[in-house]
Amino acid sequence: MKKSLIVLSLTAFIAGGVQAAAKPLSIIEQGSFATGGSVKQSQGHYNPRPAITQNTDSNSFLAVYQASVAEGGQTLHGDHAAVFYQIPENPKALPIVFLHGAGQSMRTWQTTPDGREGYQNLFLRAGYPVYLIDQPRRGQAGRATVDGSIAAAPDDQFWYAQFRLGEYPNRFDGIAFPKSKAALTQFFRQMTPNTAPFNSKIIAQSLAALFDRIGSGILLAHSQGGDPAWQTALLSDKVKAIATFEPGNFPFPKNETPSTLKSAFGDVTPQSISDEDFAKFTRLPIIIYYGDNIPAEEEVTNSQSQDQWRIRLALAQKWMDTVNRHGGDATLIHLPKIGIKGNTHFIMSDTNNAEVFSHLQNWLKQKGLDYRSLD
Amino acid sequence: MKKSLIVLSLTAFIAGGVQAAAKPLSIIEQGSFATGGSVKQSQGHYNPRPAITQNTDSNSFLAVYQASVAEGGQTLHGDHAAVFYQIPENPKALPIVFLHGAGQSMRTWQTTPDGREGYQNLFLRAGYPVYLIDQPRRGQAGRATVDGSIAAAPDDQFWYAQFRLGEYPNRFDGIAFPKSKAALTQFFRQMTPNTAPFNSKIIAQSLAALFDRIGSGILLAHSQGGDPAWQTALLSDKVKAIATFEPGNFPFPKNETPSTLKSAFGDVTPQSISDEDFAKFTRLPIIIYYGDNIPAEEEVTNSQSQDQWRIRLALAQKWMDTVNRHGGDATLIHLPKIGIKGNTHFIMSDTNNAEVFSHLQNWLKQKGLDYRSLD
Repeated sequence: MKKSLIVLSLTAFIAGGVQAAAKPLSIIEQGSFATGGSVKQSQGHYNPRPAITQNTDSNSFLAVYQASVAEGGQTLHGDHAAVFYQIPENPKALPIVFLHGAGQSMRTWQTTPDGREGYQNLFLRAGYPVYLIDQPRRGQAGRATVDGSIAAAPDDQFWYAQFRLGEYPNRFDGIAFPKSKAALTQFFRQMTPNTAPFNSKIIAQSLAALFDRIGSGILLAHSQGGDPAWQTALLSDKVKAIATFEPGNFPFPKNETPSTLKSAFGDVTPQSISDEDFAKFTRLPIIIYYGDNIPAEEEVTNSQSQDQWRIRLALAQKWMDTVNRHGGDATLIHLPKIGIKGNTHFIMSDTNNAEVFSHLQNWLKQKGLDYRSLD
Repeated sequence: MKKSLIVLSLTAFIAGGVQAAAKPLSIIEQGSFATGGSVKQSQGHYNPRPAITQNTDSNSFLAVYQASVAEGGQTLHGDHAAVFYQIPENPKALPIVFLHGAGQSMRTWQTTPDGREGYQNLFLRAGYPVYLIDQPRRGQAGRATVDGSIAAAPDDQFWYAQFRLGEYPNRFDGIAFPKSKAALTQFFRQMTPNTAPFNSKIIAQSLAALFDRIGSGILLAHSQGGDPAWQTALLSDKVKAIATFEPGNFPFPKNETPSTLKSAFGDVTPQSISDEDFAKFTRLPIIIYYGDNIPAEEEVTNSQSQDQWRIRLALAQKWMDTVNRHGGDATLIHLPKIGIKGNTHFIMSDTNNAEVFSHLQNWLKQKGLDYRSLD
């Protein structure tokens, strides 16, 4: 007993973390691979000994590289997703596939701003295989088939508002976000840019390719990831359920699409799809979560945080109603209404993330999605 | 027994992988954080309700974002490293810190082109805590304090040569690289670009900050990662050993720096540092590995693969000699000379990666670097 206490305190020291003592994770397999993507080919013929325009100073590696590219006849493999996966002992049959939101990577799910366990660990502890994605043109999947440019534009305060921490430097009262400056710094440092233009279709194709490889599973998406998540369900019948945290938009049947929702901080025009495609959303269970400090649709505000999510939550309500009117099984959870308070846009890493996790886990159980491979 | 076979075959199916059966990994802690980095501040005052130049069609989110950025007074947190870490049960005291090479991310260590276990897993199985890095301005650490531009230039065939698979589409005879087209595709899809200019000093600073956080450890670097690895050892006395796979350049004492090594495929000009800094490399054990198909210095070739590594291996030899002449403990292993054949530039993911791992593990043991926290 004493020995294990020493191990834990050494560990906390090694990691510099603030983890509570917990049972070890038993992982029977983990690794990384790419899925989806395409190949771009340059004109010309590959020349392994390209003609180099001699530099004045030196015969540089960069000059050789540029000469090689200029001769052409080469390929570029890009627009794939990067996947890190872990499979716990005695796994449940349906894995969780995690898709991050705007400006984020799989790190969204791997930690919290104050270093507690993220949803990657919580789902592993509950027995689910986990597949974490860096979507095409983001993070470790940065290689794209089109050029990209990245402006180093200071915008932390914009995102602080958009991610519903409050109006910088103020915070909403009772917010479920850690207090320390170090935590806010870690939160800001989770951001990572698009390496080429965001493309929802390419992301959905890479996810469909992942489901082709791993078989049936549950898709869990955050924010901007909602859109490619909906599209993935249209491409792959291996998506057996979708859970989303604060998606930004929704695809409606063509003739039932609401008009644009107006906000001084950016309008939202709902998406339209065919009736046939929409019907697919009525054939799988869907749950959608929104956090705290989001006013009712009619309560227009002059706060970016509140007004952006006012219109998006209103749209979520309309979408859920539409799905269920067509015989579907969509659930919208506005967390404060079930007594879970203070959530920002990052529900899965807020200080009460374990409480929301329990709710989600119960929903998976209710929907019969949590059986083990050997059950 | 039968039950466990079923679990394993289900697992192989779930992962779509080709893993051999192995004991589960027991992980007492895992997570993600950022280290190092700096903060860029824009002029002006943050305006939470920025003046928007109304678009003709809609009040778009993008327009609001641009207006917010234009008003200024905001911060950008960038130039940090992204770290994913795992700590196994009964851990050794000194963790391994993994730094990838050019065009790569931590995925370098997380898998192999044919889906076998990468060095992340092999070191965990041997009891080492592992800290995997995406260096500043790469992968999940893509947020930079300066602008970046990324050309989608087809260049797979250039890297195929530089990474010493052969001259595309040919392969060196007896190469330790998997045969399948799928493996080559996965290998190409490990590439991910710089999101802003490569900066060795910034990388070294982020690694020194990591060692400040986690305490003493062993630095394992690949290729271009060699340079920031050497620099990290100059910044932090918590680096207790360095192992490198095919580093591209080396820092010599000012008055003992060799002249430029010439190759038609790019010269290499050795780096120079002060005698005082150089002395730091004589105070810690260092091991450097190079693979197969690298000719002796005098055997100039017209093959990019061979000629690039001809001069870099020659430089490694000179550096090792210099370190040891000054009383250091540097070991250079040219793998074919100890009977390990066929290695490409990606020694840690070649088909014989476990064999090289055994050698490295024995070296760590010989140097007394493999003790456990409780020993």
